[in-house]
This record gives sequence, structure tokens and C-alpha cells, in this order.
Amino acid sequence: MPLVNISILRGKSPEYIKSIADGVNLAVLKCFNFPSDDRYQIIHEHEIHCLEMQERVHDRVMMHVIIRKGHSDKAKQSFYKEVTRNLSSDPGIDPANILIAMTENHDSDWSFRDGLAQFII
Amino acid sequence: MPLVNISILRGKSPEYIKSIADGVNLAVLKCFNFPSDDRYQIIHEHEIHCLEMQERVHDRVMMHVIIRKGHSDKAKQSFYKEVTRNLSSDPGIDPANILIAMTENHDSDWSFRDGLAQFII
Amino acid sequence: MPLVNISILRGKSPEYIKSIADGVNLAVLKCFNFPSDDRYQIIHEHEIHCLEMQERVHDRVMMHVIIRKGHSDKAKQSFYKEVTRNLSSDPGIDPANILIAMTENHDSDWSFRDGLAQFII
Repeated sequence: MPLVNISILRGKSPEYIKSIADGVNLAVLKCFNFPSDDRYQIIHEHEIHCLEMQERVHDRVMMHVIIRKGHSDKAKQSFYKEVTRNLSSDPGIDPANILIAMTENHDSDWSFRDGLAQFII
Repeated sequence: MPLVNISILRGKSPEYIKSIADGVNLAVLKCFNFPSDDRYQIIHEHEIHCLEMQERVHDRVMMHVIIRKGHSDKAKQSFYKEVTRNLSSDPGIDPANILIAMTENHDSDWSFRDGLAQFII
Repeated sequence: MPLVNISILRGKSPEYIKSIADGVNLAVLKCFNFPSDDRYQIIHEHEIHCLEMQERVHDRVMMHVIIRKGHSDKAKQSFYKEVTRNLSSDPGIDPANILIAMTENHDSDWSFRDGLAQFII
């Protein structure tokens, strides 16, 4: 269910991008218990000088996850671990180069399709 | 007043983009009662494999709206309906392919120009 | 610490982008008291018809800052002023053309690296 914004370096192959997107999605499904088709991801591509991340070099991933209030700290912690495990395995991102920030919202803040607010119908 | 992030497919004409932006803006003005010049929109363009939206195909719109706390569920619901009506009419987006997520913030979280926090002056 | 999304016009030089990023970062460090290496910035580049900002023309900067809850209105106000002062000085953005919106989150909403939630360890 969450809306996941993922910023990566420009110039990567569709396969690389799919690995990132799949790895994040698997972590979402596993740690927050969403239905398996609940996938909403926006990948943003940037020049390297447009992704400032301290002094880090090489490939990097910076994520902003928008999600409904109500998930435990434990679930979030397992999500961070799982994303990092997945992306370091494929396509091979250094765990030091993965940043995740989340913001929470409410039932009335979602419309997934058809102009309806699915959580408050 | 809201800051609206709109993600669409890359390669569309300025006219197509203007239809999207205008359709969203008209919905903002109508449903949340903002002044008519209160328009802040960021359109992000993406390759098709960078906008993951379940199994949907064809044109799609994924939006993140940042808005001050205080709007009713009813207003949000009418906004979702209105955006969908406008964009399905022009430029012709399938209502199933429009996702909207909102996050709320506070008076002190806005500076529209000149380095001032206009809501807490 | 905050995650700063900065939207600017496409086609600018790396030096111009660095001025924007440095100017925002200096304001973050000064006004919110973060350590000097605490820099997480995503710069998004857009065609001019993709950055709608009322009737304004010329260069513009639209920012979304994600930051932990707990900073005072005073700190935010000084941040807006400082960003505007820095960017109007270099690279020379009109103060009227700088928009900043913030959203707040919580300790458990951050993982800066290594899959850990650094604020709740």
C-alpha cells in the first residue's frame, strides 16, 4: 500500500532498476503484511551530483516511503533491514549507501484508483 | 496552497502536461477553497518501468499532495473524484490509473516566497 | 539529518546545482544544529512547464524537507530566511521564487545506512 519514492543514479539498465524496485517491494510485502499486488513505486533518476549523501561514493539509493499510521517500530526496523539485505544482494548496493525516510498519514489520505478513498468507504 | 507532486510518463507533450496540471489545479481550487492563484505543482517525468503501479498498463498518474492539516474527509473525497473526472476527460487518463496520496503538515511548515513563513506572521 | 528534495529547472550546470545544494545545506546546519556531515539531498531537474509556481517566471526552487518532529517555529522561520538569503546571493535566485514545505516524522522513521534505525537503537 505505501507509496514509495526511490531515487537512484541515472543511466542504469531496466534490469538494475527492476532489481531495486523488486527488492523494495518484497520488503514491503514481508514486513508490513500487504497483499501481494499492492505495489506503488516511483523511481526517480538523478545525475550523481544531484544525490548528495555525505561523502559517500558509488551507487546509492535514497527512499521516501509514505505509509498509513499504525505500523510498529519493530515492523519498520525489519523493513529497513530487509530492504538493505535485498538491495545489497541484488543489484549490489553497499548497505552504507541506502537511506530510508518514512512519513505517515491517515485513512482519508489515499485514493488508489477510480477517484475513491478506498480506506473510508 | 498545497504542494502537489505529480509523476507521469516521460515523452508527453507540453499540452498533455498542461492538461494534467490544470486538471489537478482546478480540483484543488474547487474542493479545498484556495485562492485562484495558489498554484504550486511539480511534475516529475519517468520511464514506464519507473512507475510501478500493480499490473496497470498505459498512461498513469501518481500524485503526492502536501497540504495543511484541517481539511475534512469529505473535501478530500471530493478532491479525489474531481481529479479523476478532470484527468479522465482531458488528457484521457483511465480512472483506474490515478493514484493520490496526501500528507498533512502545519502552519509553520510553509514558506511560499521571500523567506517568510506566511501562515505564522 | 533532514531529507531535502529540491526541484529546479533542467539544464543548469553542476556549479549552479552545487550552489543551490550548498546554500540549502548551510541553512540546515545553521538553523537546526545538525552535525556538519549530516547531508541528504535529492535534486530533481524539471522542464520549465513542469514547475508551476503561480505566475512567476525565471529560475525557481521548490523544496520539500522531511525532518524529525521537534524543531521550533523560530528555527523553521530562521531556516526559510537563511535558505532565501543564501540562494539569492548564489546562484542568484529571486527570493519570490523560492518555496519551501516541510513535513515532520518520528524517531522510528529514519534509516541513514546499514539497514538500522539509528534513532531508536
